[in-house]
Amino acid sequence: MKTTIGLDFGTNSVRALVVDTADGRELGSAVYEYEHGDMGVVIDAKDPNLARQHPADYLTGIERTILDALAEAGPGVADSVVGIGVDTTGSTPIPVDAKGEALALQPEFADNPNAMAWLWKDHTSTREALEITEAAAARHPEYLAKCGGTYSSEWYWAKLLKCARTDAKVFQAAASWVELADWVPAVLTGTTALAQVKRCICAAGHKAMFNPAWGGYPAESFLSVFDDGVLTLARKTLPDIAYNVSQAVGALTADWAARLGLPAGIPVAAGAFDCHLGAIGSGIRPGTMVKVIGTSTCDLAVLPMGGDFQDIPGVCGVVPESVLPGNYGVEAGQSAVGDIFNWYVHKLQPGAGMDHAALNRAAENLRPGESGLLALDWHNGNRTVLVDQELTGLVLGLTLHSSPGELFRAWVESTAFGARMIRDRMTEYGVPVDRVIACGGISLKSPMLMQIYADVLNCPMLVSGSEQTCALGSAMAGAVVAGVYPDFDRAAEAMTNLHEVRYDPIPENVKIYERLFGLYKRLHDLFGTREYAENQYEVMKALIELRNQERGRA
Amino acid sequence: MKTTIGLDFGTNSVRALVVDTADGRELGSAVYEYEHGDMGVVIDAKDPNLARQHPADYLTGIERTILDALAEAGPGVADSVVGIGVDTTGSTPIPVDAKGEALALQPEFADNPNAMAWLWKDHTSTREALEITEAAAARHPEYLAKCGGTYSSEWYWAKLLKCARTDAKVFQAAASWVELADWVPAVLTGTTALAQVKRCICAAGHKAMFNPAWGGYPAESFLSVFDDGVLTLARKTLPDIAYNVSQAVGALTADWAARLGLPAGIPVAAGAFDCHLGAIGSGIRPGTMVKVIGTSTCDLAVLPMGGDFQDIPGVCGVVPESVLPGNYGVEAGQSAVGDIFNWYVHKLQPGAGMDHAALNRAAENLRPGESGLLALDWHNGNRTVLVDQELTGLVLGLTLHSSPGELFRAWVESTAFGARMIRDRMTEYGVPVDRVIACGGISLKSPMLMQIYADVLNCPMLVSGSEQTCALGSAMAGAVVAGVYPDFDRAAEAMTNLHEVRYDPIPENVKIYERLFGLYKRLHDLFGTREYAENQYEVMKALIELRNQERGRA
Repeated sequence: MKTTIGLDFGTNSVRALVVDTADGRELGSAVYEYEHGDMGVVIDAKDPNLARQHPADYLTGIERTILDALAEAGPGVADSVVGIGVDTTGSTPIPVDAKGEALALQPEFADNPNAMAWLWKDHTSTREALEITEAAAARHPEYLAKCGGTYSSEWYWAKLLKCARTDAKVFQAAASWVELADWVPAVLTGTTALAQVKRCICAAGHKAMFNPAWGGYPAESFLSVFDDGVLTLARKTLPDIAYNVSQAVGALTADWAARLGLPAGIPVAAGAFDCHLGAIGSGIRPGTMVKVIGTSTCDLAVLPMGGDFQDIPGVCGVVPESVLPGNYGVEAGQSAVGDIFNWYVHKLQPGAGMDHAALNRAAENLRPGESGLLALDWHNGNRTVLVDQELTGLVLGLTLHSSPGELFRAWVESTAFGARMIRDRMTEYGVPVDRVIACGGISLKSPMLMQIYADVLNCPMLVSGSEQTCALGSAMAGAVVAGVYPDFDRAAEAMTNLHEVRYDPIPENVKIYERLFGLYKRLHDLFGTREYAENQYEVMKALIELRNQERGRA
Repeated sequence: MKTTIGLDFGTNSVRALVVDTADGRELGSAVYEYEHGDMGVVIDAKDPNLARQHPADYLTGIERTILDALAEAGPGVADSVVGIGVDTTGSTPIPVDAKGEALALQPEFADNPNAMAWLWKDHTSTREALEITEAAAARHPEYLAKCGGTYSSEWYWAKLLKCARTDAKVFQAAASWVELADWVPAVLTGTTALAQVKRCICAAGHKAMFNPAWGGYPAESFLSVFDDGVLTLARKTLPDIAYNVSQAVGALTADWAARLGLPAGIPVAAGAFDCHLGAIGSGIRPGTMVKVIGTSTCDLAVLPMGGDFQDIPGVCGVVPESVLPGNYGVEAGQSAVGDIFNWYVHKLQPGAGMDHAALNRAAENLRPGESGLLALDWHNGNRTVLVDQELTGLVLGLTLHSSPGELFRAWVESTAFGARMIRDRMTEYGVPVDRVIACGGISLKSPMLMQIYADVLNCPMLVSGSEQTCALGSAMAGAVVAGVYPDFDRAAEAMTNLHEVRYDPIPENVKIYERLFGLYKRLHDLFGTREYAENQYEVMKALIELRNQERGRA
């Protein structure tokens, strides 16, 4: 038996999964909840935008989870481990010293949030992101073309610039900034010294403007315009190449092998972001879109390299080999999906406090179009295709009879329409999507949502067979770098499977949703773009007409 | 002491009010809940549009309430009664025989809803109303110009045509159809015989296309096109003149005087609709708009006759002397106000079941603009100025933080913006509005709503001193026809007063609501009219900008 370990670093915890490479069977798993801060996130009561993590939690987490997962897998399994893969949140850069040690692990900086990991959802650098966007738009529009047209406050360079401006001591003490997805593999393989840290294409390409087309990271001449060149210094510490998840960054050190009870010298794969390895763990391939549906969504598709390729406006990133080696990785996302439902249930609390299940029951037997409601899913802005965080949600078609269940269904449908905007944008630009595989809790918990998505997208909705797709994807990377499989196609054949449930479009519903989506798109373009101007008198009428038609059929 | 009685026939009950004409003091009052049907409304399980009332309830109600109100007023007061006024719902036409007896009072028709009073909210004649609208638009657009451009299924001719088509026996047995507002005065004065029934200008002008400009009721040539002239027959029973509330239709019969313990021969004023006499009871005069705020609103203003006058598009009616003699009466309305709040509280049940008071508390301390929300108050369509029952409600600006109280305030604000559309339409067409007097429960129960209206309308909001303004207005009509006062100006001076509470615009809020109203109007015109086409990208941005500004000031 050959097994591999997938390490999955999330926002509140880290998970280790021990997997049989023969069939993907999950032999053992364990979770460690980070100890620092509020559920693992160091926050600042004075600044709601601040979100950091303490690197000590990562180190403790590696040891605890791997030992526990191996214990669950049973005696002897540790000896069968042939490789390790790693996925993490991101962009989550960590300031490190010249030896690659995280600054926050040094007593001097232990309690300074600026010396910790700047978690993906830290939004303190909004202004810096705007400056970078404007500078790139003026001088290097190609940098923005690969990341949807707007550089985000969640990303690498904005965070570095913010630190340079607000905590010079930390910034000067930092020899470099290393993404969490690179830091964990470097730690495990003893390659943390600056010249040795290998950077992964996933983090570099999607968040740090790295692209082979212009020779790697952005030009020093571009970075030098900010604050007397502070970013140029950081740039000098970065290599010119980046690695994909089929490549090992090194071998497990004897020290770590001893602590974990694993064979020394087994390969550790280059890291990647959680959703990207989740797509691998779901069996992504050309023609398959993977939707990781949670509080928000991450939507991933791939397109074989070598053919013609054009930039796709409005998607979060198009990066060679960022998901599946040999393919362009295309990342998109919806800013809020589960979060909209959670807002409705926990903040608006309709139906005198109905829970998700009760609202689902009230909504699931409604016919499409029957409520006369139409909503925009922009409660947290719009990530793809509008890339505008300041958009807001809308609902239209309200009457004195509109019920909690009808509104719930309207929110679900609005997220399906948002999903269709993304799918349509991809296919318009040549990325094929024949089927969608969903993963994440909602894909199992809400058959209503899945059927609505199938009807709105007019394509089959499948469900990933694993509930730990990210960790499974990492374990698959471990198997590929260990040589168990020559590539991810073979690994996916053996190690991934689909849930038995699948959702096929219902032709009758497809027709109705086609009409509703047409109305959604009018509102989408009207409020979300600057160009579209058209009277909307017909929108309310069309909804009433459809409502009367559908009620008449009931 | 001289007293008068106001009789106020509502949807579920009738009220009698005994008033001292010297100062408007309410000496006694009594309410009688109708006995027939569901809370006084005869309904049909098979047809939710049907709503009728049994005339027997009206007769019982007159006797019970006047006797009880006089008993409460005390001994001797009955002898001091010098006049009676009457207000009712409408259009509520009653089929009667040649002697003026209601058909439903005859054993043969006692249980036939078609022979009863067709209550104002009966909507069985939607198709007939459409036919009348189309015919008038083609041949007599002036008929529609006085009633907002659309003939309603709630009105006189539509109901008659519907009866002719669905119950020929009743229609043939009916010698004429008499509005409830005319029938009660005729009954009290013994003038029910067809040639004697005096029709009031309020019902005739607002609901039956009566206007002195074309010689009274619509031309026979117009009515003759429907169903071989069935309406022409009904038209022949109607007189060419109509009466206003300063005119008596007759004297109390000896028989009724004996039954009620009142002096025989006292004058009974011509009737009018409840809101119109409510406006009188609130002290309406040129420059004052009266808003009767309930589940919906009825908005009334007056304009002195004699000057230039043009039709006002979109208002429910402009009829000479329909409200205040010597003035044009202008009626407008909002299809839902209290109904929107009731829908939110009782149907959507937000905040895990917060009641009106709790939502009010959550909303009242918010600053205008702070929530970033903007709503359209069209949950029950739009009566004025769009005259479109098929419009629907909308809310925009939703985020993951939008709270039950913020949404509640947005609904209240939306009704204030709707109120402003009406006020602005009136002033644009030369009807002065310097102050607004509100009556109805909400005007006393919601200081927040009243302040918002003052800020949005940028004019003082006053509250009527009486909680029975309709009955008080009727009692004032009784005083005028009795000669206690020469006109309603004098009667209002003596008999009406304002509540001590008043709401003046807060300049800081006025400025913010001016901006929000500008955005409201864009959406209003975009979804409510056919002509307006403009991109709305700025709407969500403007709301966010305003929200950030107002939160920053907090």
